[in-house]
Amino acid sequence: MPHYKLAFLGFGNVGKALAELLLCKREQIAARYGTFSVTGIATGRHAIAIDPDGLDLLQALELVNAGQSLDAISKISPPCTTSMDFIRDCGAQVLFESTPVNYESGQPAVDYIRTALEAGMHVASANKGPVVHAYRELTALAASRDRKFYFESAVMDGAPVFGLFRETLPAAHITAFRGVLNSTTNLILSRMETGERFEDAVRYAQSIGIAETDPSGDIDGWDAAVKVSALATVWMDTPTKPQQVDRTGIRGITQADIAAAKAQGARWKLVCEARKTGDQLVARVSPQMVPAGSPLYGVQGTSSIVQIESDVLGTLSLLEEDPGPHTTAYGLLADFLNAVR
Amino acid sequence: MPHYKLAFLGFGNVGKALAELLLCKREQIAARYGTFSVTGIATGRHAIAIDPDGLDLLQALELVNAGQSLDAISKISPPCTTSMDFIRDCGAQVLFESTPVNYESGQPAVDYIRTALEAGMHVASANKGPVVHAYRELTALAASRDRKFYFESAVMDGAPVFGLFRETLPAAHITAFRGVLNSTTNLILSRMETGERFEDAVRYAQSIGIAETDPSGDIDGWDAAVKVSALATVWMDTPTKPQQVDRTGIRGITQADIAAAKAQGARWKLVCEARKTGDQLVARVSPQMVPAGSPLYGVQGTSSIVQIESDVLGTLSLLEEDPGPHTTAYGLLADFLNAVR
Repeated sequence: MPHYKLAFLGFGNVGKALAELLLCKREQIAARYGTFSVTGIATGRHAIAIDPDGLDLLQALELVNAGQSLDAISKISPPCTTSMDFIRDCGAQVLFESTPVNYESGQPAVDYIRTALEAGMHVASANKGPVVHAYRELTALAASRDRKFYFESAVMDGAPVFGLFRETLPAAHITAFRGVLNSTTNLILSRMETGERFEDAVRYAQSIGIAETDPSGDIDGWDAAVKVSALATVWMDTPTKPQQVDRTGIRGITQADIAAAKAQGARWKLVCEARKTGDQLVARVSPQMVPAGSPLYGVQGTSSIVQIESDVLGTLSLLEEDPGPHTTAYGLLADFLNAVR
Repeated sequence: MPHYKLAFLGFGNVGKALAELLLCKREQIAARYGTFSVTGIATGRHAIAIDPDGLDLLQALELVNAGQSLDAISKISPPCTTSMDFIRDCGAQVLFESTPVNYESGQPAVDYIRTALEAGMHVASANKGPVVHAYRELTALAASRDRKFYFESAVMDGAPVFGLFRETLPAAHITAFRGVLNSTTNLILSRMETGERFEDAVRYAQSIGIAETDPSGDIDGWDAAVKVSALATVWMDTPTKPQQVDRTGIRGITQADIAAAKAQGARWKLVCEARKTGDQLVARVSPQMVPAGSPLYGVQGTSSIVQIESDVLGTLSLLEEDPGPHTTAYGLLADFLNAVR
């Protein structure tokens, strides 16, 4: 059985959840795929640790959870201080990239991933930015090195939206999709249905860590547009930027709109959709009233759904309920195992 | 690029739809996977044709659609008259098995598949019988010959329920599932919601070819129980027979029940479910009232859904709408391409 050296670039909620998942699944992975060690962890605020013989993952988790630096367990000197140096020095075969997303350019994650692939590593990324801004380049680079650039967690957390298309639908053409893909707006709309005002629903979403301090990226549909772009780019092999998505957020939805929908047995959802006809792609994010019979109707709170139309099946939908950092972490684990199997 | 020799054992609606799909996708498959020829077709009522140099698939379709025998295009003599002889003589590397299902024993399909695997063929089967009655044996046999026994179309037509688990959820344990998996009963219940009597809804389902002349296999929950058995057997690695599934059909559902559900914004569904706790599997098929917020609520007519609980994700659901012979055929094509890639 092979041995895999892994490295974490980013060790926030997702990175830590992945560390816990790796510890929990260690024996099962060893039995089926091979053993592994973690040779590097680069955090945003707790320094960088590298140990070619393998770091103690449990100890690393304890240090970071206690707000302490990873310097104490790093075995290289001088210490590694930049992410680029970390990628070159960590000695891993697989990089888990979970740095913050940059919707504008995908940077610096695009550069990180390019560097890792050039160094011969597989990359598993939870980051939408590089998918939207550099999917073709990074996928071609990975292929040229016989490596994989996978990003299952970039859309719908760990639900296998990209794996489904890549691994289980051979020779299929996806012609259109439609879904609810932004948790924050969906949670806000769900809470407004109980009579809560828009502003209070936003504050609630912020209080539980779903919405940002500046919630406009979600509320104005930018996050949804980035997800539409990522899906269109990969599923339809059509590079698409968020700016190309016709975008309307949920600021215009009033309590009166919510009540009017309820009166006819419907609900408002921020609907993400795209359709390719010939070479022409039309992509849109907009609030829509969906009836009770629609698969979108029951998607409440932080759950999400995508309906897929293709040339080979009727409409196929993937629905994810109860996501969280642990499901995003699972997407990264699945990417790793699918890359090396 | 490799060349693949294919054979059809069974050439009914699904086999013919697969032939059409292969013709339609020929260039796309050639570009990505390799070229193919069809060296054998065994039909139930139109004889058997074998040609080591490749049959004309279009001509075969025309003959069968015109009610004529395939003898005219067969190139071996004496003609092949039994399915077993066909499997041994067809010279294919991949067998598409779509013979009628036998819920009791899985035979003779189990013997057909065993013979094909022993002869070194991959097998793509649309048949639930062999999955329920011989999954472990046939999978182990395939593995010992470095071949694949795949059966994507056995449950939920071409929706990738087995591929999803096998290819996209590495290191996952499925702990429970719940779904609507029988089209006939779902169609009957959907029509009863419009006021149609049970008997008339059954007759309608028969008239469009969904229900059998003897509809009891569907109405009494046997087909649903077989699907629960197949999913539990494969997903939970727990060999399960339909007789082990606690089973209640829909005969007891009255118009009064339907109306009572409607009054509270709910619907009746024949729900398939299983849960594994430790080594203990509990499996059940029963009519249940599902509320409008449930993902099962919107699954009407011949659509189907399965919700999956696992140790790595929140609830993940796969929903298929508008199935038909062409989607079952796609499942067989996907099995072929996944087996050889």
